[in-house]
Amino acid sequence: MSEAAERSENIPAGKGKEGIPNGGNPEKSKEDFDLASIYVSDAQYNRNIYFDTSPEAVRLYLRYNHWLAKVLLYFFILVDLSLALFEEPAVLPLPIWATMLVELLCLLVFTIRLAHYAKVIPRDKFWKDPKNICIIVIVLLTLVDMIIYGALKATNCYGVRWSRVLRPLLLVNITEGRQLRRAFRSIRNALPQIFYVFLLFMFSLLMFSLMALKLLGKRGLKTINGAPYFTNYLEIVFDLYVLVTTANSPDVMMPAYNSSFVFAIFFILYILINTYIFMSVFLAVVYNNYKKYLKEEVRQLVRAKRHKMARAFAVLQEQREEGGQPVVSQANWNQMVRLVQPDISNAHRELLWRVADDKNQGYIGKVAFVQLVDLLNIEVITLKSRPHPLQSACPALYLSAPSRLLCRLVQHRAFVIVYDLIILVNAVFIGLDEENPLVSNSEWVFLALYLMEILLKLYVFEPKAFFSRHSFWNWFDTIIVVSALIATIINSAMKSTGGYTSRQILDIVFILRVLRLIRVVDSIKRFRAIINTLIRIGPAILTFGQLIIVVYYIFAMVGMELFKGKVKFYEESSTDPDKAFCGNAALNGTDFAQLNYCKNNFNNVVSSFILLVELTVVNQWHVLSSGFAAVTHVSARIFFILFHIMVVIIIINIFVAFVLEAFFVEYSVDKSDLQTSLERKIEELELAVEQEKLEDNLVNAMETIDNDQGAGQSVDNRPALMFKIASKRYRTVDALLQRMFEADLDPEDFAENDDAEGNFVNPAFSSA
Amino acid sequence: MSEAAERSENIPAGKGKEGIPNGGNPEKSKEDFDLASIYVSDAQYNRNIYFDTSPEAVRLYLRYNHWLAKVLLYFFILVDLSLALFEEPAVLPLPIWATMLVELLCLLVFTIRLAHYAKVIPRDKFWKDPKNICIIVIVLLTLVDMIIYGALKATNCYGVRWSRVLRPLLLVNITEGRQLRRAFRSIRNALPQIFYVFLLFMFSLLMFSLMALKLLGKRGLKTINGAPYFTNYLEIVFDLYVLVTTANSPDVMMPAYNSSFVFAIFFILYILINTYIFMSVFLAVVYNNYKKYLKEEVRQLVRAKRHKMARAFAVLQEQREEGGQPVVSQANWNQMVRLVQPDISNAHRELLWRVADDKNQGYIGKVAFVQLVDLLNIEVITLKSRPHPLQSACPALYLSAPSRLLCRLVQHRAFVIVYDLIILVNAVFIGLDEENPLVSNSEWVFLALYLMEILLKLYVFEPKAFFSRHSFWNWFDTIIVVSALIATIINSAMKSTGGYTSRQILDIVFILRVLRLIRVVDSIKRFRAIINTLIRIGPAILTFGQLIIVVYYIFAMVGMELFKGKVKFYEESSTDPDKAFCGNAALNGTDFAQLNYCKNNFNNVVSSFILLVELTVVNQWHVLSSGFAAVTHVSARIFFILFHIMVVIIIINIFVAFVLEAFFVEYSVDKSDLQTSLERKIEELELAVEQEKLEDNLVNAMETIDNDQGAGQSVDNRPALMFKIASKRYRTVDALLQRMFEADLDPEDFAENDDAEGNFVNPAFSSA
Repeated sequence: MSEAAERSENIPAGKGKEGIPNGGNPEKSKEDFDLASIYVSDAQYNRNIYFDTSPEAVRLYLRYNHWLAKVLLYFFILVDLSLALFEEPAVLPLPIWATMLVELLCLLVFTIRLAHYAKVIPRDKFWKDPKNICIIVIVLLTLVDMIIYGALKATNCYGVRWSRVLRPLLLVNITEGRQLRRAFRSIRNALPQIFYVFLLFMFSLLMFSLMALKLLGKRGLKTINGAPYFTNYLEIVFDLYVLVTTANSPDVMMPAYNSSFVFAIFFILYILINTYIFMSVFLAVVYNNYKKYLKEEVRQLVRAKRHKMARAFAVLQEQREEGGQPVVSQANWNQMVRLVQPDISNAHRELLWRVADDKNQGYIGKVAFVQLVDLLNIEVITLKSRPHPLQSACPALYLSAPSRLLCRLVQHRAFVIVYDLIILVNAVFIGLDEENPLVSNSEWVFLALYLMEILLKLYVFEPKAFFSRHSFWNWFDTIIVVSALIATIINSAMKSTGGYTSRQILDIVFILRVLRLIRVVDSIKRFRAIINTLIRIGPAILTFGQLIIVVYYIFAMVGMELFKGKVKFYEESSTDPDKAFCGNAALNGTDFAQLNYCKNNFNNVVSSFILLVELTVVNQWHVLSSGFAAVTHVSARIFFILFHIMVVIIIINIFVAFVLEAFFVEYSVDKSDLQTSLERKIEELELAVEQEKLEDNLVNAMETIDNDQGAGQSVDNRPALMFKIASKRYRTVDALLQRMFEADLDPEDFAENDDAEGNFVNPAFSSA
Repeated sequence: MSEAAERSENIPAGKGKEGIPNGGNPEKSKEDFDLASIYVSDAQYNRNIYFDTSPEAVRLYLRYNHWLAKVLLYFFILVDLSLALFEEPAVLPLPIWATMLVELLCLLVFTIRLAHYAKVIPRDKFWKDPKNICIIVIVLLTLVDMIIYGALKATNCYGVRWSRVLRPLLLVNITEGRQLRRAFRSIRNALPQIFYVFLLFMFSLLMFSLMALKLLGKRGLKTINGAPYFTNYLEIVFDLYVLVTTANSPDVMMPAYNSSFVFAIFFILYILINTYIFMSVFLAVVYNNYKKYLKEEVRQLVRAKRHKMARAFAVLQEQREEGGQPVVSQANWNQMVRLVQPDISNAHRELLWRVADDKNQGYIGKVAFVQLVDLLNIEVITLKSRPHPLQSACPALYLSAPSRLLCRLVQHRAFVIVYDLIILVNAVFIGLDEENPLVSNSEWVFLALYLMEILLKLYVFEPKAFFSRHSFWNWFDTIIVVSALIATIINSAMKSTGGYTSRQILDIVFILRVLRLIRVVDSIKRFRAIINTLIRIGPAILTFGQLIIVVYYIFAMVGMELFKGKVKFYEESSTDPDKAFCGNAALNGTDFAQLNYCKNNFNNVVSSFILLVELTVVNQWHVLSSGFAAVTHVSARIFFILFHIMVVIIIINIFVAFVLEAFFVEYSVDKSDLQTSLERKIEELELAVEQEKLEDNLVNAMETIDNDQGAGQSVDNRPALMFKIASKRYRTVDALLQRMFEADLDPEDFAENDDAEGNFVNPAFSSA
């Protein structure tokens, strides 16, 4: 649906070389800097929007990209999606007019956003882009559906809000849904190959089922429920499909195995071929295709990025000498970088310039300029060894011998070990019965110890550095300990005054207590490495989260229409005789009712989502699907099988493929060339942080952004300021992806981009 | 256990360059050819045995490598392993003296084989090799165990045959168990990394369990059996460990979920982190390490191979001109290749020579000679367009117009389609009730049609070519159809004479009928590609089969000692009241008994193996392990958890990693340089098979090995003979592995080997 859209998100022609007078070097106007900075920031975040280059359009485009606009858009999408909570079948029922009004508001916001977009890009481009068409169609269809539904409800007829399945598609079709569109595209591209493997798998399934029918159907065997065993071909196909997911192993085999152990061979062969071999082949095919297409996409992204940087260069370039290569001066460069990324320090900007202008010429050529985008995407941590505020306030005391001893003690390895031991002891105490007064009082001791640890650290380390942006564990510790303290105080206050204990507060106290223990992980280096990798690939995993939500939402909406109210859940205390079969006589005696699965139903969107998670986990999905088939029709199983194919065979495999690939990158690749050159420059300038002086977590803890102190100031004069590359953090998901396929990217691609401008015309799409 | 062994399987010093007089070119003796051919065949099959180079030792070594000796060895290992069928607890009980006698015979064979090996290699090497020590220890321990056991039995005491767990280790420690040792080595090398991830995983499991205890333990919830829910910490840990394997989802969540849907979030988070993320990380770590170590091993293999080829060259080399490079003449080359591979045709040998001696000099240098081993490992199919025997016998008839028309018809695409349709119709008929006389009679029609197809094809294609070694589907078809015919005739003969139908024969008839349908797959090109890949990686998968058997056997032996007789299986017809709880009151009311799992027991080696397969499939393994814990002790669960970690987390992941890697190779790599040069040579000589003339399966069908017709004969004179490279078949598992990592192998490694001889000393082990 959106590939053509992405493809037509073309690169603007912009101001060509010919737009700039070759001879003189005119002052660049504010518009020029705006335009250049937009190109650079588009390149940085891989936005491929073919915007108009007129000053008004540029200004509109800047507003279109404003973070507030984006946050609002996502907020309204969230509101639109969560309407399912309040619509029939509802978790919290609201009157129809209320939900409809909110939905209308959401539609209005989407329309305004789209109209804004239409003003930014040329009209013909707008109408050629399928994702805009998609949004228009979704909005219109939703309106039509709302009118029909409203009319039907007004006349008390039965109506279906079918347009609700369209809602998650908004997430895919907004301009910011780039990652999600890419994920869908790689799924779609992998489909043909998956399809052939699936056909072969189905053929094998049908053959084995036929053999099972012939071998076992006439033996008069009974299942454990007394039903005839393997006599109906379609039932056998379903049973064996379920066996592929291993959900009914070994139960499906037991009647045959009980009659003779020879039949076990049949089932073992079946599992070997269909579960182990075919499922591995599925993973291999999905993985291979995913990698292949993603690589191609990333290649195109990189080319488009370089193309945009060349555009920015064209805007800012000037001619130093007659007939020489066009260049960009340091002043222009500085002004542009300030516009692109206002939050980076002068020293950092100076550092980047030094890397770009290796020969200290005061200007850079196109090649160096194009690199800027990758330089900006490398996170450089600026370290500033600020004195501790106490030292400034009362140096005599802070620098006294006992105070210094304390600092050395806290910084000593033994301090960490002692606190790890305290945590372990704490874990044992948590495990003990908290009714025991000794145990419940010990909690105060532990809380005091943890508080003391934080205070000691604050005494030793500069507080601003301690609570810097990247020091995850310091934040984690402090928040957990402080909230545990508050919750524990509230809890004991309530207990001592009214003798009443709030279950909710107690639960929170328990959770906080256990969470505190996680800190141990950070002090073991091997664990830290694994967890850091997981945290690093976290943002990319969020794309999969969106993907899952889109698919879940659609299935939940369809499932609610098909199955709502068919299965009822009765509270534990209920004495209704219908409770034994979930309020539906068709379930009487089925596994579904016997296993007490009544709460696994489609009666509202929350329980639908939980049910879909259970189906994703696969185990017992045959019991669930058979249950819903029993209360409706046997064909309801198709819904569940479709879900299994979509989510388990395709999406989960892509997820596994992604995690594998990301881990391999972490294991194998070290640093990109650019990072190396940046690091070399930092070392050259003698601004590198000495590794042995700083433990990894301390480095993160000490990171701070210093404020603007004038552009021209030399970096060399300030030995107190130091840099470190946060080498393996990726600002954006695209940066991670580019990193993943860097080794496979054609180096020719880069060389080509340094040639004439002519090569930049549509580079991203000619090779598609 | 065996890495050092492999490492010490050193390359013999052999006859150095200095052993050969530099000036003259003495006639090579038979011993020289024997020695050279051993080096080449060792290189071809990657045997790294440091044999003595004295003529007697070489002769002994030839005998040691004889296929009959190997087959006998594997036969006796098989006998030794299958003794478990006859020993207590036995499938077919035999008296102790009988099994002991057979075991003694096996031990004798192993000792003789080892003694033979000791004669082949120098004594100090023999005693330095841990795998020889292992075999000696296994044999001695087995003898000791047999004596103790015999004595205990004679005095009617209780004895345990503990040495039975050592039996499968023989498979690992014999010289032929190279692949298996390598697999174990890569597992062992991956263990440290897996261990850290496992520790982190266990930490997460313990934290979640603690939280579950605190959140859910005091709410007074009940499981579906009425037992208290989540009140015992160790039980929670076990339950949540089982949840990682998804085997008790969603049952373990239901009591909490029924009390409030908020608790579902806890379980969903748990599954996300521990099942999806951690299990993917396990796969990533196992995959990455497996690849890394295997790559290193293959690199060493390739270096050792080239080293052996250089040795062979040193034996056969002669000096053409004073001071020139040593070379090997065509005559010597021919004689050696004939010794190494007696079954390849003269034409094939001629072709190989042409590739090696590119400049037609009549002799080749070291570089070309070293390549020989890879050339030999490329399967070249020799095609010979022989006339059909009927054409020779009766040309007038065979070449007549109707006969030609028939040939064209059979070769036409429509013929295949018609038969595919017949198969589909047949499938429907098989699905129908065979009691119906119409259906049962139709079987004869289908049999006649299939027979006719084979006869027609035999009429059109040369029979020898039709039944050539590689034409898998022709063999498959013929065997299936002929056996179905025989079985059907026997079946109806029995029916018509005595009215009696043998269930066994009928089963065989049914299986054969369904198997016939598989043929459809071959006529769809896409399917053929997938299946060919699977068949190609088949031999390598067999290594995993051995690995699994070793682990299963050990667990089965231990399991039988721990759990034999604890659970009893009663026949369907039995009316024993103990049947309801598998003959053990401890199982009364447990899921194990209720699900009728009584036949899943450790009462003999066959049911142990089937039970272990069920545990590998994972589903319901908690029911099985809890069952066995109930009849023994709760610590019995450790046995099952250990099995799960060993087999599911480690071995299955390595299996998946291997399938993935093999598929990626199939998808990405095309041909090696050597294959390309061989193909180019075939084309140069105008002996290439025209692709458009021959469909892939026909090529395979027409392959044949022509007989020896003299060495000097020129290939050009025989246009009736053609070659084709069976491009993607691998003669050995090592060849596939080498192919898998070819792209990653350092090309320097190859260049180095072409240098001076000095570089060849221990090349495989210096870089370890």
